[in-house]
Amino acid sequence: MKISLDAMGGDNAPKCIIHGAAEALARYPELEFIIFGDQQQINEILLSEKNFQRLASRSEVNHTDTVVSSNDKPSVALRQGKDSSMAKAINAVKHGLADAAICAGNTGALMAMSKVALRTLPGIDRPAICSLFPSAKGQTVVLDLGANPECSAENLFQFAIMGEAFARTVLHKKNPTIGILNIGVEAGKGIDSVQRAADLLRNTHLPLNFHGFVEGDDIALGTVDVVVTDGFSGNIALKASEGAGWLCKHSVKKGFASSISAKLGAFLASPALRSVFKEIDPRSRNGGMLVGLNGIVVKSHGGTDAHGFANAIRATKNLIEGKVNERIIAEINIVRDENE
Amino acid sequence: MKISLDAMGGDNAPKCIIHGAAEALARYPELEFIIFGDQQQINEILLSEKNFQRLASRSEVNHTDTVVSSNDKPSVALRQGKDSSMAKAINAVKHGLADAAICAGNTGALMAMSKVALRTLPGIDRPAICSLFPSAKGQTVVLDLGANPECSAENLFQFAIMGEAFARTVLHKKNPTIGILNIGVEAGKGIDSVQRAADLLRNTHLPLNFHGFVEGDDIALGTVDVVVTDGFSGNIALKASEGAGWLCKHSVKKGFASSISAKLGAFLASPALRSVFKEIDPRSRNGGMLVGLNGIVVKSHGGTDAHGFANAIRATKNLIEGKVNERIIAEINIVRDENE
Repeated sequence: MKISLDAMGGDNAPKCIIHGAAEALARYPELEFIIFGDQQQINEILLSEKNFQRLASRSEVNHTDTVVSSNDKPSVALRQGKDSSMAKAINAVKHGLADAAICAGNTGALMAMSKVALRTLPGIDRPAICSLFPSAKGQTVVLDLGANPECSAENLFQFAIMGEAFARTVLHKKNPTIGILNIGVEAGKGIDSVQRAADLLRNTHLPLNFHGFVEGDDIALGTVDVVVTDGFSGNIALKASEGAGWLCKHSVKKGFASSISAKLGAFLASPALRSVFKEIDPRSRNGGMLVGLNGIVVKSHGGTDAHGFANAIRATKNLIEGKVNERIIAEINIVRDENE
Repeated sequence: MKISLDAMGGDNAPKCIIHGAAEALARYPELEFIIFGDQQQINEILLSEKNFQRLASRSEVNHTDTVVSSNDKPSVALRQGKDSSMAKAINAVKHGLADAAICAGNTGALMAMSKVALRTLPGIDRPAICSLFPSAKGQTVVLDLGANPECSAENLFQFAIMGEAFARTVLHKKNPTIGILNIGVEAGKGIDSVQRAADLLRNTHLPLNFHGFVEGDDIALGTVDVVVTDGFSGNIALKASEGAGWLCKHSVKKGFASSISAKLGAFLASPALRSVFKEIDPRSRNGGMLVGLNGIVVKSHGGTDAHGFANAIRATKNLIEGKVNERIIAEINIVRDENE
């Protein structure tokens, strides 16, 4: 199993990429890597710790000069980034050299380059960004998180198929439940596209476990396994949740600092709290996927650490082993046969 | 200053409505109330505590038989709820008997009835639901929260004017900053309506303090005072934030229960944590407004307690004193003159 890594993407690159790969390799010795980026920097890190020797022996480092920055517009990245570490990592998948690519950099550029290099799966009109949110019951798959600000009912229906395949392969759910994000759970609520997408899901012959509409708080409650929405609302749900989570943590810290007894309480409770906060930290559930492409491309959180990046590698391994794209193609083919 | 109350709306009605009114009256002795609802229940509560005597003497209780339930569709409420406590409370504003109405019940029904009874302000195409989110800097005004699932650029522009007037009167901000919710802060991001709304705000002669685009996490960060969005995204941001905040609190509780030292820590820190959690609890910042109507209608959180309802009364008092609608009309008139 070979994974190509863009070593230059994300806030802590290339260090956290290499450290994360070493951590993942210790867990999954069957992995091999093709690493794209500044060879000198990468080799320095590989030589910096003795236990990176195994990683060095299981990796092929390919030098690239160009880096897609987090501020580059997708159109600029497409024009000027042909020789970037990001483009090369994607191309390794395109040319069959790697089973999947992982990048922690610019999401818009990654999506644009992946679309051009890999094309969408047959029967899929638009790829989507799919990721995991923490929930009271574990994790909720949400898509699209920003690739498609406006979506038709058919787009949302295809997202449901892709999100379900993601939940089966990454969360190992047998029969994941699917909900469409709306501003009320009653039939007739919301906008036309979500109404029609719900109709498509109710009437399909695919064995999809459609729950109906869900609201924003159902993401954290874990009411369903897969929440389907357009990229505008999905991105806003993602960022608003992150903001609210951050504010809550910030408030807890403020409370702990506000009196002597609270400080002592914080000291006593902090190991337990660190572990629960880690559970709901988006970085510890790392590894979103650009679903709907001819190849597996995983987006790691840009601000992740080595442990988070190792989690992205684990998610990628699950996607490869679970043959996520074969599942999607099989279901889409059934839909196409139905419609003929 | 006279406020009409729907005593039958919300999870804890009529008790929390009456207790909340008593609490508000203790703070603001100039208030008077017209209370609509089940007279027997209301009078029993008014007689239950000695210090409710003052409230009883400052209130006129009007009996109603019909209650709009939280599950009623707006269209059903409009047809069947003409004699409900909700309708009567709104009509008191329409007929000049009260300066504002407050209701903790069904939001959709409240909006539908208020629109029919009060009509929109001249120059405003659609009223919106406007409320306060907790933020690291205090509070953020967000609108629309669900009245208008689809919005034009002109709608969003009008929401900006209304949200700004709300921030001036309720938050006492001198020159509130305004942001449009989007999936990226760069110009050119997102959907057409937000692009054009941003153009309208950049080019207006109104003295609006337009910041530009903001993202979902900026609500909790407090990047701007007023966040403008359509009712679909706004409702999802609201509910997703509530869900994430709930999950965070739930995780803290789980952490506190997980070991003996964590339990002891919880005991020591709990007074401090209770106070910070109260700060970020949506119920303690109670009092959304249906902005854009010929009259002030305030929506209290349905699950609020007496203290939360008293806060809704305080917010209502600010809106009346701050002449929120006169501000909106003055600004809309300038825009209309500009366009002529």
